[in-house]
Amino acid sequence: MIKHLAIILFVSTSVSSVAQQLEKEPIHWVNPFIGTQRMGHTFPGATVPFGSVQLSPDTDTIPYSLDGKYNPKVYDYCAGYQYDDSTIVGFSHTHFSGTGHSDLGDILVMPTTGELRLNPGTSTNPDSGYRSSFSHDNESAQPNYYQVHLSDYSINAELTTTTRVGMHRYTFPKSSDAHIIVDLTHGIYNYPGKNVWTFIRAENDTLITGYRQTHGWARTRTVYFAISFSKPFKSYGLVNSEELIYRGFWRRFDQNSNFPENAGREIKCHFDFETDNNEQILMKVAISPVSTYGALKNLAAETPHWDFDRVVREGQNLWNKELSRIEVETLTDDDKVNFYTSLYHSFLGPTVYMDVDGQYKGLDQNIHTAEGFTNYTTFSLWDTYRALHPLFNVIQPNRNMDMIKSMLAHYSQSVHKMLPVWSHYANENWCMIGYHSVSLLADAIVKGNANFDTQFALDAAVQTASNGWYDGLDHYIKLGYVPEDISNNSVSKNLEFAYDDWTIAQMAKKLGNENIYKEFTQRAQNYRNVFDKSIGFMRPRLLDGTFKEDFDVLDTHGQGFIEGNAWNYSLYVPHDVEGLMELLGGQRELEVYLDSVFNMHLPDKYFENTEDITREGIIGNYVHGNEPSHHIPYLYNWTANPWKTQETVRLIIDTKYKPTPDGLSGNDDLGQMSAWYIFSALGFYPVAPGSEYYELGSPLVKSATINLENGKTFRIRAVNQSPDNKYVLKAKLNGQDIINNKISHYDILAGGELTFYMGARSRWSIKHY
Amino acid sequence: MIKHLAIILFVSTSVSSVAQQLEKEPIHWVNPFIGTQRMGHTFPGATVPFGSVQLSPDTDTIPYSLDGKYNPKVYDYCAGYQYDDSTIVGFSHTHFSGTGHSDLGDILVMPTTGELRLNPGTSTNPDSGYRSSFSHDNESAQPNYYQVHLSDYSINAELTTTTRVGMHRYTFPKSSDAHIIVDLTHGIYNYPGKNVWTFIRAENDTLITGYRQTHGWARTRTVYFAISFSKPFKSYGLVNSEELIYRGFWRRFDQNSNFPENAGREIKCHFDFETDNNEQILMKVAISPVSTYGALKNLAAETPHWDFDRVVREGQNLWNKELSRIEVETLTDDDKVNFYTSLYHSFLGPTVYMDVDGQYKGLDQNIHTAEGFTNYTTFSLWDTYRALHPLFNVIQPNRNMDMIKSMLAHYSQSVHKMLPVWSHYANENWCMIGYHSVSLLADAIVKGNANFDTQFALDAAVQTASNGWYDGLDHYIKLGYVPEDISNNSVSKNLEFAYDDWTIAQMAKKLGNENIYKEFTQRAQNYRNVFDKSIGFMRPRLLDGTFKEDFDVLDTHGQGFIEGNAWNYSLYVPHDVEGLMELLGGQRELEVYLDSVFNMHLPDKYFENTEDITREGIIGNYVHGNEPSHHIPYLYNWTANPWKTQETVRLIIDTKYKPTPDGLSGNDDLGQMSAWYIFSALGFYPVAPGSEYYELGSPLVKSATINLENGKTFRIRAVNQSPDNKYVLKAKLNGQDIINNKISHYDILAGGELTFYMGARSRWSIKHY
Repeated sequence: MIKHLAIILFVSTSVSSVAQQLEKEPIHWVNPFIGTQRMGHTFPGATVPFGSVQLSPDTDTIPYSLDGKYNPKVYDYCAGYQYDDSTIVGFSHTHFSGTGHSDLGDILVMPTTGELRLNPGTSTNPDSGYRSSFSHDNESAQPNYYQVHLSDYSINAELTTTTRVGMHRYTFPKSSDAHIIVDLTHGIYNYPGKNVWTFIRAENDTLITGYRQTHGWARTRTVYFAISFSKPFKSYGLVNSEELIYRGFWRRFDQNSNFPENAGREIKCHFDFETDNNEQILMKVAISPVSTYGALKNLAAETPHWDFDRVVREGQNLWNKELSRIEVETLTDDDKVNFYTSLYHSFLGPTVYMDVDGQYKGLDQNIHTAEGFTNYTTFSLWDTYRALHPLFNVIQPNRNMDMIKSMLAHYSQSVHKMLPVWSHYANENWCMIGYHSVSLLADAIVKGNANFDTQFALDAAVQTASNGWYDGLDHYIKLGYVPEDISNNSVSKNLEFAYDDWTIAQMAKKLGNENIYKEFTQRAQNYRNVFDKSIGFMRPRLLDGTFKEDFDVLDTHGQGFIEGNAWNYSLYVPHDVEGLMELLGGQRELEVYLDSVFNMHLPDKYFENTEDITREGIIGNYVHGNEPSHHIPYLYNWTANPWKTQETVRLIIDTKYKPTPDGLSGNDDLGQMSAWYIFSALGFYPVAPGSEYYELGSPLVKSATINLENGKTFRIRAVNQSPDNKYVLKAKLNGQDIINNKISHYDILAGGELTFYMGARSRWSIKHY
Repeated sequence: MIKHLAIILFVSTSVSSVAQQLEKEPIHWVNPFIGTQRMGHTFPGATVPFGSVQLSPDTDTIPYSLDGKYNPKVYDYCAGYQYDDSTIVGFSHTHFSGTGHSDLGDILVMPTTGELRLNPGTSTNPDSGYRSSFSHDNESAQPNYYQVHLSDYSINAELTTTTRVGMHRYTFPKSSDAHIIVDLTHGIYNYPGKNVWTFIRAENDTLITGYRQTHGWARTRTVYFAISFSKPFKSYGLVNSEELIYRGFWRRFDQNSNFPENAGREIKCHFDFETDNNEQILMKVAISPVSTYGALKNLAAETPHWDFDRVVREGQNLWNKELSRIEVETLTDDDKVNFYTSLYHSFLGPTVYMDVDGQYKGLDQNIHTAEGFTNYTTFSLWDTYRALHPLFNVIQPNRNMDMIKSMLAHYSQSVHKMLPVWSHYANENWCMIGYHSVSLLADAIVKGNANFDTQFALDAAVQTASNGWYDGLDHYIKLGYVPEDISNNSVSKNLEFAYDDWTIAQMAKKLGNENIYKEFTQRAQNYRNVFDKSIGFMRPRLLDGTFKEDFDVLDTHGQGFIEGNAWNYSLYVPHDVEGLMELLGGQRELEVYLDSVFNMHLPDKYFENTEDITREGIIGNYVHGNEPSHHIPYLYNWTANPWKTQETVRLIIDTKYKPTPDGLSGNDDLGQMSAWYIFSALGFYPVAPGSEYYELGSPLVKSATINLENGKTFRIRAVNQSPDNKYVLKAKLNGQDIINNKISHYDILAGGELTFYMGARSRWSIKHY
């Protein structure tokens, strides 16, 4: 990161004064390039916290399919950018951070000079298109600021944003033939037929409006936009390259050249300028989920000026404010960079999804108004219920409540009567399994962060858990398990349903609904029904009650599991570790089982066909990139040797997070991997969201101050912290010894201090229960 | 018509009491089948006056292209129905009446029994699909009521409407396997790629919502809908038959069967029932230009009940009210049927285009609210400026003002700064030539029907006439003519621009703007610049000032004209017949010219390649189906022998309008052909809209009473009317002799009586000027 920050001082004088300030500010410790190489799937571009616009360079345009067959390379480009690439295609306005599947990449902008090209070209033959070579030596990134020199055109490109507006500053060379390309066919995870429709108008010689409608991961998604230029273009084209069968009487105009309206499936635009040497042309691109009017309102409200540096600074002020929610001292600068970059990544999603006036498009495709809350979208809940939303309940409780209100609005609009599973942009993607929305509701309610309609939330949770058509749920309710011959990945579904059901029970208990509490407490025990005592693993059962034969406990494919194998998933009973321990044979057997997980050798064949798992990403049979295992290191707390939790957590922190582009060992998954890091670095982790308790681990920080929204502060101190002193000799809460290795959320809310006393060899073996 | 009315008494007892009333009511004289055979392009289905929903049977699904080539047969199906067909595909909710190009056909519904079929089948092999045979013997139509027996399924189908809701009543036989098909891929003028997107939800077992987005004549059009069933379906499918490259995780559900949401490009639905013998299942289909919420609002507001007969009756009451604006006595029942059917056809468009709360989608694709007016769409202005809107200024002045307000709203939303040319459903189709919106504005202002922002209207007219990029207008403004090598059909454009400019001048004069009056009065003389004195015809000129060589004065293709040849179009100077006469050589030469038009022989080759012109449709070289000639019969009024106007008008009335399915000699063109009939049958015609004067012809009626919106009545009497007495001996206005063969619009507004004294051989040869 230091390298990249240094470059800013040379290439962009305008932010140099900013740079001098940086060292005092949290944003100094954020390196947006972390995770941009290989599997992290993060993006280096500019955004404000939870911004609708996430404006970032895309380095290639890998097609989703080759000859009708899925192209595995497309997986590398979930966030549009791969650090090893040498060309940039352009800058698009929407990105997911860290997903393992993708969409978005809306409204690609690319400044060029010379001959007009409307095709991106290929990475092997970049000169055939508008893309440009670039070098990391001439590239820099900070929160809400990205800069790169486009060497093919001698153009310096700078990006910054507000919540709903992306601002571009392009410094051109002298040219009589300068262009800004807006390629509306560009998208991430593009495949034939993804572009459903595009509508575009040149309102005048500095203002463009339109929308882009796609059929991608979100089946029916429309992004409306308004684009403003700081300088009038001298000519332009809104070019539809589609061969239309029927154009009717439109043929009598050349609609592709200086004609102010076009629509179709293959729209690319160029805006042409004459530039002086070092002339800067700025662009503002506002987006809206509602209409081009909405985009114009957002444009006017958020950027009523052309002061690029002000936009950078205001966005960075927002970041400093958000990142200051936790202040840490660490042993090394690298740790601090990892910490604040993790916090940064944790605040990239869910994203704001409404216009400045509160209007947004709902799941029913109608326009709704968010009354009294900010509407959010992009809920990767299978990932983020584990640590990200619990983290928000600590340091972003108000936002988390707004996210829950957004989910309840989604539920109200759902014809399926379902809380979100994996939703974005007014769509349910049905990605991954379980109904983990209920975990978010329960966690917030149990932790007293519940200034929403809790009764409605409970109704929504129970209704969601009663939708028999969903993933074998009818059989689960009737038989107590999901039969593999009814619904594949049945054991994963079964175990996650059982956990989710337990969270519903906790919510009902807190709200005083005894019947629901009892019913779902009972359902929460359904994990037992897929445990095969004869082999000591969770194992798929069939409709006839028998267990699946030909069973491989190491394979992650076709064995009843998803993103995990029987070894990992058999530990997925976060809400009843005691019960699980009993099934496994007792406390000692659990410890042996855990030791095996972390120490066994997983043959290559078990992950070589899995897109995002590499040898470096695993510890034994533990794959940190697979979320169902995230709680596993903390399960040693239930054994006689909690120091193994401490050791393992520090091992993962040290080896699976690095302050480098390849620093993430797996997809960041919209902040879940980062949130795991934040909790673990602070020394505690929410093994079972829906419980008020956190399991203690081993803090990485020397000290930390959590500045709570209730005005109180909660301090963490690690006495005698060092790389070797990774073991906790004892822990105190406000001076009192902690004897059960846990703290409560209410301990944090009350403010105070958690003190860890660290040592190199100690064996603190408090019994967990 | 009598045949069809009679059938109602047998097949539909529920409306039999209605039928007994009919004879006293104007709707008795309407036969919706007129024009449904061959070229009329009208539809027989149910609608209220100016209804958004025009619910009518479609009898085939002719593809727009065959092997990539235009299929001329598609032209026959502009209104979906051809009388000679023997099968009905289903009932769709939107239709144009009388157009020569098409779109719409939204939301096709078909009830069936037996094996489920989701494809329509073909006319040659109807059993291969869901279509059904039918017979005209078991079919009937009245205003707002259509009925047909679907013989393949023994289902009696009945249709009626409110403004925004279509109501279906299907009487089923006993069946354990009854279906209602909703085919959202069906459309009129369908071609590959026309269906852009469809979204659909089964809200519950009686309610469906969704939208259909198409790319047709309207490039970007979306119809939202809400469908309510009177009986819950027992099962259903929202089937997407598209081969999706990418379905992501959706694969784990069977989305085509009992799954409540789907979206895609190829959506067809089935709703399954068990029926008793004679069980009736009703459907309400509401449409909206805004949203599914809008459709639900419209549904609730307009049909808060399931009383089909009430909806029929209320709609027919509306028709009786509208048709009563003119009461006529005729010599024969056939004449009365022709008259009231023409009036009926005149009131089918433009159509209401907004929700019950005033919201509608604008040309900019944003949602607008019509404040203080009803928003209309479907402006086929090249056709309808001639007689339809002038007719509205007499008998529908308030609606006409609302139509003008709708056009001004369109202008405000136009990125082209253009008043509508041919617009429908928030789109400009750019069909045909000129900027005849200005004629509507001028005609309303000159006739005092101007309770709208007239200054804004004048600005809009001038701006529209200043858009140099449009159809050679920049050259027209600079050179005084449209060069054929710049813009084809240049003479037609030139002549129509000149007329339009004259209307702007009239508007400016009335509003006291002397500069604009002068400028456009001068521009109105530009017709002279394309008159070739050496041959005595209008003739295309090239950019270099010379006239086109190789010129055929009879050919309608490639000679500088559209829907007309040099013979016809050379008479297109409606605003300055004196000037034209002078160019032609004088009064006698005009008469000779007109005699030639009506008496010459037009060889077959000149119309055999033109879709809607047949030998029966022409009189000499006069083609009544081509609007640019509609004023020609009245030009004899400028000669020494106005009796030739009288004779010719009666000849056209007698031979080009018949009370039979094949009764229209050309496309009704959204009421223009019918409006010509109404005016002509009353005895006067607006040769130059924008003038307050009407030219007298020869009335067909014995008497007529026009019930004006200002509360006054204007009576027309034809003394000694008979088939032979087609000549006007003299005419009196309120007892005073008319000496100039004209009446003023203000004469009509004042109320009073116009009396024609008819004779068989008289030669009333008043000089016109």
